[in-house]
Amino acid sequence: MNKNKAQFLNEPSFSDGVQSADTGIRSDHVREHNFSMRPVFGVDRQILMLLLKTMGNPPVRFLLWNGEEVSGGADAPIAQVFVADRTALLRLVVNPDLHFGDCYSSGRVDVDGDLVEFLEAVYRASAAVPAGSLLQRLISRTGDARPNTPAGSRDNIHRHYDIGNDFYRLWLDEQMVYTCAYFKDSGATLEQAQVAKMDHVCRKLRLQAGETVVEAGCGWGSLARHMARHYGVKVKAYNISHEQVVYAREMAKADGLEGHVEYIEDDYRNISGDFDAFVSVGMLEHVGADHYRELGDVVHRCLRDSGRGLIHSIGRNRAKPMNAWIEKRIFPGAYPPTLAEMMQILEPWEYSVLDVENLRLHYARTLEHWLWRFEKVSDRVAAMFDESFVRAWRLYLAGSIAAFRVSDMQLFQVVFAPRNNNDIPWTREHVYVPELPGG
Amino acid sequence: MNKNKAQFLNEPSFSDGVQSADTGIRSDHVREHNFSMRPVFGVDRQILMLLLKTMGNPPVRFLLWNGEEVSGGADAPIAQVFVADRTALLRLVVNPDLHFGDCYSSGRVDVDGDLVEFLEAVYRASAAVPAGSLLQRLISRTGDARPNTPAGSRDNIHRHYDIGNDFYRLWLDEQMVYTCAYFKDSGATLEQAQVAKMDHVCRKLRLQAGETVVEAGCGWGSLARHMARHYGVKVKAYNISHEQVVYAREMAKADGLEGHVEYIEDDYRNISGDFDAFVSVGMLEHVGADHYRELGDVVHRCLRDSGRGLIHSIGRNRAKPMNAWIEKRIFPGAYPPTLAEMMQILEPWEYSVLDVENLRLHYARTLEHWLWRFEKVSDRVAAMFDESFVRAWRLYLAGSIAAFRVSDMQLFQVVFAPRNNNDIPWTREHVYVPELPGG
Repeated sequence: MNKNKAQFLNEPSFSDGVQSADTGIRSDHVREHNFSMRPVFGVDRQILMLLLKTMGNPPVRFLLWNGEEVSGGADAPIAQVFVADRTALLRLVVNPDLHFGDCYSSGRVDVDGDLVEFLEAVYRASAAVPAGSLLQRLISRTGDARPNTPAGSRDNIHRHYDIGNDFYRLWLDEQMVYTCAYFKDSGATLEQAQVAKMDHVCRKLRLQAGETVVEAGCGWGSLARHMARHYGVKVKAYNISHEQVVYAREMAKADGLEGHVEYIEDDYRNISGDFDAFVSVGMLEHVGADHYRELGDVVHRCLRDSGRGLIHSIGRNRAKPMNAWIEKRIFPGAYPPTLAEMMQILEPWEYSVLDVENLRLHYARTLEHWLWRFEKVSDRVAAMFDESFVRAWRLYLAGSIAAFRVSDMQLFQVVFAPRNNNDIPWTREHVYVPELPGG
Repeated sequence: MNKNKAQFLNEPSFSDGVQSADTGIRSDHVREHNFSMRPVFGVDRQILMLLLKTMGNPPVRFLLWNGEEVSGGADAPIAQVFVADRTALLRLVVNPDLHFGDCYSSGRVDVDGDLVEFLEAVYRASAAVPAGSLLQRLISRTGDARPNTPAGSRDNIHRHYDIGNDFYRLWLDEQMVYTCAYFKDSGATLEQAQVAKMDHVCRKLRLQAGETVVEAGCGWGSLARHMARHYGVKVKAYNISHEQVVYAREMAKADGLEGHVEYIEDDYRNISGDFDAFVSVGMLEHVGADHYRELGDVVHRCLRDSGRGLIHSIGRNRAKPMNAWIEKRIFPGAYPPTLAEMMQILEPWEYSVLDVENLRLHYARTLEHWLWRFEKVSDRVAAMFDESFVRAWRLYLAGSIAAFRVSDMQLFQVVFAPRNNNDIPWTREHVYVPELPGG
């Protein structure tokens, strides 16, 4: 077993329950560390105690470069954090959000124990540190997020989504859906759950054959193809990731859907035309709160009075800056909004919000599948990139599982209609009919 | 047929569709008016044209005191507004929201045609007047809303809910539920739809036998009794309407639920105890946006970490002041919030919003039933109060139907959970199981 792999021995399944019962540092969780001869001074221990305090004293043990152990919290430690040198320790205390990620990626910080559970414990403990305190501000310190102007967005999206279709193909489902799945049935596979999610979206939108749909941010194009194939609609799908658009077009051609789905490599701000439905799954995180009004104007411009819309986005319970490391290394320019912030898109044009569903535990489960698959191919990923890339992505996936589990992150699906549209369903029962047309 | 009655010839049913096909002024819609000998001058016509412009030129015809007709809008008039004198006309143009209601109540303004359709046409036309314009500000001009301090709230609630249980008994359903019903089945009666609403709320909260529930604002206590009887929970229900609490206690005693439901005549701010569920149906409209933070603190104080909450409230697509006449004559201190404003209750304590459903068309349908029943007993209501009371309530009920139909008003049910609670349902299918335990 690769000593750096996250602790997923089996494919995640519903029988696991939401949270693993596995706590505590098992012997197979402890890695071998390279200790140094450099001494640990009293000031190092004081810095470490300050770090533990800023983290809300989670039940973790620190293992310093000379082999010395320092525990935080009153409870038995559920994980051990190895810190390889003093500089890494100083960085952790100066900006834990940013430098934990960087030091973990480079291997100067390592975690013995279940990485997801360790991160959950840290999130839970730090959530208890009073908001607005110096400590809290220390924790949540972030750099300036990258701007999401048309040029800025193109650069931000390029940095994440254009790193290689071959890479994503290694661990995503067969349809390359890179957003929260919907685990309708207890024994659902990731493949089934992604199809169920696409149907869930289509049902909420009550798509009818012959209608037109515009999709803002279409990933590798799976939802657009699903809509065209199973609901008989015509879809225009926008995306600024070149790699994704190339792939999406190939797939549409292979599936004989060329006349039904058009993939357009362009910014959502340039959407034009009149549509029966507006849909956006997993793009809003990249729009940035400064641009919600613009997005609302786009919706207003392109959605018919008889239309319906759905926005699916990672969200928050309360507004706070994006995790600095994620924003810097994984998703430049990203920001998950609160529900109130999302309303800045819809209120100026008086859209009527019909339905909001929070699928946060489904995203935790989706990410468990991704991390499990990622670990299976981590040696191939290391060969494609390098070991620090593997460690960074492991941390990103594990940290996201933890964030959705402890409710730091939400997943909102918001359905809305123009205020003049009374052709709205009486109940939501139509979403829960037994047969899945595309299942 | 009483010449003032609203035009409901049959009990509302699903087969009507959302909107009646009945448009235009039918001969049986035209009342007899008392014309005067006072002349109409050019300035009167100019004032009327200004009034029509502030209203967005709806397709209505005005009939002035001397019998002269003036039409607005390009389309054939769907209703005729009789204005009995110049003072009434001046009042309409100075503050249409407020004075239309007062003049209609006193009979100095009357409407020939379907009152609901007339109001719908007016709402639709005035919604098209650009927001922020002088005209829009004229329309939406309002007085200062009454404060919702503990003393202010008691007075505000007293003015509406304490006007007499005998009055409300005349036209509400047999369980005296005075909030939006849930018309699950197409042929549902009002009685069935109110029971379905109570079950809908209980299912969303996933109440389990033996749990404790606190209800903020309980009306005549029907939901609390329903929860105790059909879900085996213990309920503490708060209300500051003396008349309602007296009635609720009598009913609980008659139903043998005394040990299971406790009605407390007190302000929501004084709720104490620990509960598994927090529920509030139709109270938030009376809380006032200045007090949402206080309400959130109350929820935080009384709801266990493992708990769930549901707030059911009339809402808006976009923030604007309450209709001045409704605030002054019908619901003092009332304010329907936007979804973003509702989040001011939940965000400070980082509650996770699990589910939002908009039932606005159900409220239109509920109000149709109420108005239909109200018209059947309007002579008895006139004997209890007077004719202007009947006309005011007719306008309030008809205006509410119109407002929910044209999407000026929404009905939000918001389900939430403390951020630490992962015992949340995977899907919402449990809300849509076929059997109604209380049905």
